[in-house]
Order: sequence, then structure tokens, then C-alpha cells
Amino acid sequence: MKKTLCGIIPPLVTPLLDNKTLDIAGLERLIEHVIAGGVHGIFILGTTGEAQSLSFNLRADMIKETSKILNSRLPLLVGISDTSIDDSISLSQFAYESGADAVVSAPPYYFATGQPELVEFYENLIPQLELPVYLYNMPTHTKVSFAPSTIKRISQNEKVIGFKDSSANGAYFQSVTHEMRDRENFSIFVGPEEMMAEVVLLGASGGVNGGANIFPKLYVDLYNAAATQNILEVRRLQTKVMQICSTIYSVGSFGSSYLKGVKSSLSILGICNDFLAAPFNKFDKEHRMLIQNAIKNLDLK
Amino acid sequence: MKKTLCGIIPPLVTPLLDNKTLDIAGLERLIEHVIAGGVHGIFILGTTGEAQSLSFNLRADMIKETSKILNSRLPLLVGISDTSIDDSISLSQFAYESGADAVVSAPPYYFATGQPELVEFYENLIPQLELPVYLYNMPTHTKVSFAPSTIKRISQNEKVIGFKDSSANGAYFQSVTHEMRDRENFSIFVGPEEMMAEVVLLGASGGVNGGANIFPKLYVDLYNAAATQNILEVRRLQTKVMQICSTIYSVGSFGSSYLKGVKSSLSILGICNDFLAAPFNKFDKEHRMLIQNAIKNLDLK
Amino acid sequence: MKKTLCGIIPPLVTPLLDNKTLDIAGLERLIEHVIAGGVHGIFILGTTGEAQSLSFNLRADMIKETSKILNSRLPLLVGISDTSIDDSISLSQFAYESGADAVVSAPPYYFATGQPELVEFYENLIPQLELPVYLYNMPTHTKVSFAPSTIKRISQNEKVIGFKDSSANGAYFQSVTHEMRDRENFSIFVGPEEMMAEVVLLGASGGVNGGANIFPKLYVDLYNAAATQNILEVRRLQTKVMQICSTIYSVGSFGSSYLKGVKSSLSILGICNDFLAAPFNKFDKEHRMLIQNAIKNLDLK
Amino acid sequence: MKKTLCGIIPPLVTPLLDNKTLDIAGLERLIEHVIAGGVHGIFILGTTGEAQSLSFNLRADMIKETSKILNSRLPLLVGISDTSIDDSISLSQFAYESGADAVVSAPPYYFATGQPELVEFYENLIPQLELPVYLYNMPTHTKVSFAPSTIKRISQNEKVIGFKDSSANGAYFQSVTHEMRDRENFSIFVGPEEMMAEVVLLGASGGVNGGANIFPKLYVDLYNAAATQNILEVRRLQTKVMQICSTIYSVGSFGSSYLKGVKSSLSILGICNDFLAAPFNKFDKEHRMLIQNAIKNLDLK
Repeated sequence: MKKTLCGIIPPLVTPLLDNKTLDIAGLERLIEHVIAGGVHGIFILGTTGEAQSLSFNLRADMIKETSKILNSRLPLLVGISDTSIDDSISLSQFAYESGADAVVSAPPYYFATGQPELVEFYENLIPQLELPVYLYNMPTHTKVSFAPSTIKRISQNEKVIGFKDSSANGAYFQSVTHEMRDRENFSIFVGPEEMMAEVVLLGASGGVNGGANIFPKLYVDLYNAAATQNILEVRRLQTKVMQICSTIYSVGSFGSSYLKGVKSSLSILGICNDFLAAPFNKFDKEHRMLIQNAIKNLDLK
Repeated sequence: MKKTLCGIIPPLVTPLLDNKTLDIAGLERLIEHVIAGGVHGIFILGTTGEAQSLSFNLRADMIKETSKILNSRLPLLVGISDTSIDDSISLSQFAYESGADAVVSAPPYYFATGQPELVEFYENLIPQLELPVYLYNMPTHTKVSFAPSTIKRISQNEKVIGFKDSSANGAYFQSVTHEMRDRENFSIFVGPEEMMAEVVLLGASGGVNGGANIFPKLYVDLYNAAATQNILEVRRLQTKVMQICSTIYSVGSFGSSYLKGVKSSLSILGICNDFLAAPFNKFDKEHRMLIQNAIKNLDLK
Repeated sequence: MKKTLCGIIPPLVTPLLDNKTLDIAGLERLIEHVIAGGVHGIFILGTTGEAQSLSFNLRADMIKETSKILNSRLPLLVGISDTSIDDSISLSQFAYESGADAVVSAPPYYFATGQPELVEFYENLIPQLELPVYLYNMPTHTKVSFAPSTIKRISQNEKVIGFKDSSANGAYFQSVTHEMRDRENFSIFVGPEEMMAEVVLLGASGGVNGGANIFPKLYVDLYNAAATQNILEVRRLQTKVMQICSTIYSVGSFGSSYLKGVKSSLSILGICNDFLAAPFNKFDKEHRMLIQNAIKNLDLK
Repeated sequence: MKKTLCGIIPPLVTPLLDNKTLDIAGLERLIEHVIAGGVHGIFILGTTGEAQSLSFNLRADMIKETSKILNSRLPLLVGISDTSIDDSISLSQFAYESGADAVVSAPPYYFATGQPELVEFYENLIPQLELPVYLYNMPTHTKVSFAPSTIKRISQNEKVIGFKDSSANGAYFQSVTHEMRDRENFSIFVGPEEMMAEVVLLGASGGVNGGANIFPKLYVDLYNAAATQNILEVRRLQTKVMQICSTIYSVGSFGSSYLKGVKSSLSILGICNDFLAAPFNKFDKEHRMLIQNAIKNLDLK
């Protein structure tokens, strides 16, 4: 991680055979698939990776296997978010020993924390980590949003090298960008893919976009169009991304439609198993057929 | 309203002397100020206009006086959001008779409504209005967000000519844009000014941005830069807007800091009174001094 | 209002023929029905009364007609909650002139307020009212809950004679009760009927329970059982109330199932029209049949 | 667990020396303290036990040590709530092997679940547990509330022997009670101690009240007064409990004031260490002094 990371970093799904077992062959195909698509790094054990639904040991397995397959071809970011600071540190240590490049940390998510507690938590946690850290904002799931001033404060520690925002709040995203404008070598990524192009046009580092699991080249192309300020191409590709969001992620009206849709698509494309860890379940045949049609109707050339 | 509206439409503050009385001289200065800044229309009785805090009669006064001062120099949009459908219709009728060009309607905000109820409500309301309608999304205040499919459904009535989104949700904004992509002559505006440039770059119609009360030319310039895809200029002016957001709107930690900041700035600049309608209050001297310094530190040339 | 009010105060529905017209014959029957059931007062223009969905003029009509029919046979409480302080004062003045005994005020509900703003708002409002005041806590609808210390502070003005809590938060209710324990002549009522008996057992003043529109005697009997500490009878009658809640208020899964259920029941019993003001609608035939069956299955003797 | 559990079950704090180490001497004193106070069972690794802030291994330690100290003198309930179903099963297996009597499970809390997913989750989980199960409702922390019909559905499995509700929603509590009225041998406990007496008066099983860590006899006495329908004594003791809630749990305005207050009190009384696991911190000297005064001002005889 010598230089600042930018581009498309897929938040990798965790291919599973059941609640206890990785689909390792699927994981291999998935990693080769996203590398072939041109992505700029890989992020495992995030929300799209269902990290919280996996046992500690299964998370460790995922780190080990991904690192082995990836074999340093791309930067590897590892989610260590947990409600226990000790288990977070253990995961980070394991990631370090497995050859990961950085860790990604969202706040503890059982108890709601305030801003002073966030600052204290990270001032406690970060010195205990061997790897550089990205902060991860996911307020719907963690019950707290990093105030821009909190990010600035925590980032006085140079081990903090970036921020990923999955709040979908565009005003907030620009506020963080503004607050951090004088900090060098600090990456700011956006989670929701609907917003990726527009924030890159305004200077953001890139996207940690779930759709890049399925169609990595599309997201890389859209990122490149935005990074080179090719607005015409941005608008053309944005329509494709929006078609994905409004079809593949919106089948059924489950809270988990997005996760189901991503894994179902990967299964339909022959990449990996579509098993979802408890408390969720994969799509039934009828819903899977809707995903199949949605993919068929995409015209990605 | 022959052609589709686009550009900067300031959500005008309502200059007040007290809870019952308009500051009419201030209103005149304010309208001339924003016209001089090059704005493309005026929206009164929105959230920034504190419409809900004004009595029905005071809202009617505001419509009448604004229309008289504006004298058809720019399109006039009038907020008619109310919890009572009858009072909404009465306000709309009054706006029509006063020469307004369109009305703007957010859902009723005491009871929370579901999507089917939103559809029914607007299918009931719209035929009773003489003027074309903009839908107004303000979920933090109305407890409901228009689903993109709901907007499409309601907009089958051609009297619905646009949508204003103040959710600050960038993913949602793109979803609405995508859902409405085939509807001609439909404007989509964004409320939060932090997001205006980026959504215009992707094709949105413009911004209904509170800061355009104070610094109309800045917002018009930023809009023009985005509309002409001048990214370098967009980034330069975006920094000014973010400086405004992070200083003028953030003094104190009141829920009403934004409203206080806008009216305080207008008072400092000699444009209008800074009285806020109940349940809010204007800044005290100490906070006003902070606003004064924030304005002084802006470098808007 | 010489002595402290206690007992069952039905939050009267507003019988309507359409969005603009009272069902006055229905209103007469409804008032006679609840008086015959033994209720201790009447509260109009609350949430169950759909006050916010009615135009200002229709609310004034409701005050006038109710007062005329009631003819001072019971204490009359009038809801004046509005987003405009001026319209609240006008409603209160009208209630006073019509012979009402007290007003009931929930905080403004468009803008969210903080505790200091609540205090200021009421310190501004209350001196402008002729009638004594009950504070009304309805946080799901007003976006703010009165802190117990805020209630105590506002109630230093002796015109504040009581509090109604519709939060359904049992811990909060006891906190308010504890905070106000030394204030004499202060009534504390609970909104949700499921909780009425238990809070009266612990010393609360009574209930403002929607079901008392339909079955006033049941709620009066339950109140009396609790007030006389007849636990066996409390448990027997509580089961009846819970049967009402789990059937009549739970038909369909609308946000407005409760309102629809209450008005549908009153229509089935021949008391008043079941028209609901926009944005809601009355039950269709199929749902009405379910209410009819629910009523038939009650055994209220 | 032959017969249905009722009474006061303290949700035991987890005495800690630091984030990795139990205060075992403190744990011994605490257990003897609550036994001496007459409690009817012990619940470890709940929210008050900061379970989520502890590593998996530390949770296992807490189970082992508590079981050893308790030595079957009282029923031992063990919280197994986790975001990973596998780690929940492992904890339950460990609890079973350590001699616990039942487990307590709140829904997974990172992803929000819907009612059908709750049903599926528990239909998957429960057959994999050796011990009987209490469901634990904690919607502020888990983002979902068990619908009464969901509880009924899950409880068709007879291994489900009870329910603990920490929602503080009194209407909801009665709805669950009503829904489960025909199920024999099913306990329903309330979390918030402010509500314990009133729900026991209406028939609930008892309380899982944090204050019973500090003053076990008070809560047992209040429970007994309610269970024997001694209303005068209920009201007298309720005042003591409310004094605790309004002083000891309300020092500072931290989200964690309750946890800080409980552990601080236990430390002041010489029972155990007041270290709080990350992301929280114990009170500083100044706040601790306020707790000390609050305890001194209680008159518990």
C-alpha cells in the first residue's frame, strides 16, 4: 500500500456451501473473474461478504484462502468489524500474518456509540493493529455515522489511510471529502454504486461496489470514464448500472434482496454457490428466474 | 411553464418581523437580490421558507406579496404542503389566482403514509389543483419517501411536471432519475446543495438550494459549470459551497442551525430580518458573530 | 376543571361525510353513546380525531358542534396541536369562546424540536391561551418526546394541569410519573389502552383510549376495577380490551388499521359514518366484514 | 427447569479487569450478593452483561466461571445472541456442557431481519441447541421486534419456554401476553425495571432487571409485593426503584449511562470492578462521586 489506492474494489461475496463451509472452488473462480475484469483491489469480509453472519473461524478461513488465491496480485483489504475489540484485533493479526495489505473497520454495532466513544474506540484499537486501516461508515447497520470531524480526528494517526462510506448520503459524502481535503494520501470510497461515477467526477477515489462481483469490467469502465471526465460515456454506463440496481437488486421486497440478487447472479453465471448465511436464504426458483431474465436483458457491450 | 424548468431555484426564506407579520421590505430586497444573482425561478413556502410554522393566512400573504414583487419576471413555485388536503387545495387556488406558475407538494406529515396511500392521496389531490405540480420528497420531515415507482405512477398525470428530492440520498436520486428516464418534460431537482453539481453532471435539472438565498450567483455559476461539464470550475466552486455548508450552516449544534444560519446571513448582509417563526429562534449575538466571521472568510470572487 | 380530572376520556373520532363536512347526526349519536357508557370527559381533535387531516375551518366546526351537543355535561378537552403557533392560538381562542374546559397540545410536528426549543415554545404559547393546558406526548408523530424534566419545567406554569402520553413506553411513563410526584392537581393519562389498567394500578389518572369510542362502558369498567384495585376484575376485562386490540385494530396491515377499525366499528354499530379524511380511506367491504366478525366474537357482558 | 421460572432474574454484569480478563473475585462476590438478596435465577451474557463487547473466548470463560461459582444453587440462563448462527450454537453447546439450564437468544443484530426471516432463523437454530430457549426482544439493538404472532409460531417448538422483552413498549408487552395466553409453561419477563411491578400485577412472570445486580432484595421485595397484589407496598417500593432509575442510571447523558451507573455502583459497594469493555468506559471520578451521592440518598429499608 505504498501509494494511495483508487479505482474499483469489489466487496467480495463469501462463496459458501453451507453455514460452516467455504465454496473454495467458487472463491477461486470469483477472484479470477474480478481480476480479469480489471479491478484495482479486493475487499473481503464486508457487509456484502456477510462477515457478521460467519463464525470467527470461518472468517479466518476466508482470509487465508483469499490471500492464497490472490497471491499478492492485487491489494487485499480485510474487514475486521466486530462487536468485540479483542476479536477485531485477532482478525487483524490473522490478516496481517496471511499477507493482507490493510484492514477495514466499521464501529461496533450492538451498542450504539456516540462521537466521543468512536474516537476513544479507535484510539484504543488502531495502535493494536499491524496493518493500515480504512474506516467504514455503515450507519444503518452500526447505528452511528462518523461525523466528519471524528474522521479527521481519528485520521491524525497516519495508519488511517482511507474511508469507505456506505451511508448513501451524498451531502455527507461531500462533507467528509471537504473535511479531509488537506490530508494527503487518504482515499475516500463510496459504497452505493449508483453514486460512484458522480463522486469520482468530483474527486473521490473510487467505489466499493457490490455489482463489481458480477460485472467487474462495467464498473471499471464506469470508473475510468469518470476519472477521465468523459461525461458522455459516464452517462451511457451509468444507465447500465442503474438497470442492474433496479432489476437484479430489487427482486422480491426483502431487506436482503441485494445480497440474494448478487449471489444468485454469480450462481447463474457459473461463478459460485448462491448459499446465503443465516439469517438469510437464497432465492427460490421463481425469484432466480427473474434474476436470470434481468441478466439476459442487460446489454453490457 | 411552457418548457421544462432547470437551473437554480432558491427555496426562499420567509422574511418575518414576528410570528404574524411579513418583513415586506426585506422580501423585496431578497427577491431583487436573487434575481440579480441570475436564478432561474423562485420557490416559496418550502421547508427553508418555514411554511409549516406560518399560519394559513400568513402563507397566503406571502404568496400575494411575492407574486406582486416578482411580477412574472421568473417562474414562481408555491409550496402547498399541509396535513389537510382541503387547506392544500385552498392554498393552491390562492396561488393560482395570484399568478403563480406551479405548486410544490410534499406528502401529509402528521400521519405516516404508505406507498398505496401516497398514490391515492395524489390521485385525489391533483385533479383539484389548477396549477402544474412538483412532487417534493422530504422523508425526514414527512416520514415517507416516494418510491421511484410511486413517482412514476403519480406522474402519469401530465400535470405532474417535476420532482424535488431533499432526502440527500444519492442512490435514491439516481434511482428516481432512472425510473423517470422516458418521461419527457419532467424536471428533477435536488435539495442539498452539496450534491447539486454532481447530479447536474449526471443529467439532473438543477438545485433548490437554500444557500442561493444568500449567494445566488455562486450557485448559478456552479450550476452553469456543471451544465457545461466544466469539471475544473465545478471543483473550484464546489469548495466554496462546502465552505458555506461547513461554517454558516453548522454554527451551534441545533437541529435548526441551517435555518438560523441562512436568516442570520441575510440579516448580516442587510437583506432581511432574521426572525425565525416558532418553534425556532434566531441566533443570539455570540452565534451571529460566528456567522459574520464565516461570511468574512468566504472568498467568493 | 375545578378538580383534577381522572377516568376515561375518549379521544373522539371526528364523524365525517367527506373531507369537508361533519356527520353531525353521527356526532350526536357518538356523544350520547359515550356519555351513556359513563366516560369522565371528552377529548376532541386528537390523533384519533384526525385533527391534522381536517382544515382549520372544519376543526372549528367540530369544536362548535361538540360543545353545543355536549352542553357542559362533561369536561371538554380540545386538541390545538398545529405546526403554526398562531393557528394553535386561534383554535384555543375559539375553543374558549365555545365553552371548552381545557386544551391539549402536542409539539409542532413538521420540524423536529429539541428539549430547549420545547421549553421555549411552550413558554411562548401558554401565556397566550385562555384555557388550562394538557401536554400531549406523541413522539412517533411529532419526532420528539418530552423529557420528564421538560414537563416539570413547563408545568411550573400552573395553567399546565396534565399530561397525556401516547408513546407506549412504559418505562418513560413511570419516569414522568416519578418526576411529577410532588406536583399537586396534575393528571397523567395514558393513550394506549393496552396499558391503561396497569398504570392506573400504579397511580395514573386514567386513559385517553380510542376503544372508548366504541365500547365506552368496557373501558370505564376496567378503569374502575383498576382504581379500586380489583385485580381479578382487571385481568378479566383486560382480556376483552386485548381482544379488541388484536382483532378490531389489526385488520389489514395498514399504518392506519387502528383508525379504520375504530370508524368501521362505529359505522357497523350504527353510530356514525366511517369516512376517513385524506390521506386515509375507510375499509372496503371485505375488511369491513372482518371487523363485523370481530365485534360479533366479542363477549362484553 | 422443571417448572416455569418466575421472579427476579438479574441480568448479571460481567466483572472485568480489562478487555480480556474476568474479575473472578468480583464475580464471586456478585453472585453471592444476588443470591443473598433472594433472586430466583441468574442470566449472564445479556446486554447488561456486555456480551457483545466480549470476545468469544471471554464469553466462554464467563459461562464456565459462573457455573462453577453458582454450583446449581439457582437456574442459570446464558445469552447466546450473536450475528453468527454457528457461534451461537457453539456458545450454547458450551453452556450445556458447563451445566447451564437454558439459553437466551436475541435475533442477529448486524443485518436487520423481517418476521419470516426470524421464523426461519429460529426454526434453523433451535433444533441445534441442547438447552431450552428464551427468546429475547431488544429492538433498539437488534433492529427488529418479534411480532406476537412470530413468537407464537416459534414457540410451537416446546423447547421455547419463555420470552424476555426489553422494548419498554407496554402495549406490545400486553399484546405478547395476550397472544401467548393459551400456551402453558411459558414465562414472560420484562427488562425495564420501571415496568416490572405493573406487568406482574397483570400476570407477567417477573423481571430481568439490571438494578437487581446492585440491590437484589429491593427488586425481590417489589416482585413479591406485586405477585401478592399488595398495591400499597408496590407503590412504596416502586418509588425506590424510580429513584434509582432517575439518579444512578442517569448520570451524564451518555448512551451508556445505565451500564456505567450499574458497574460504578457495584464498585462503590465493594462488589466488583467497574471496568467497562470497549467501546465504553467507566465513569471518571467526578461522575463516580455523583453515583456515590445517589446511593447515599437512597433509603432502602
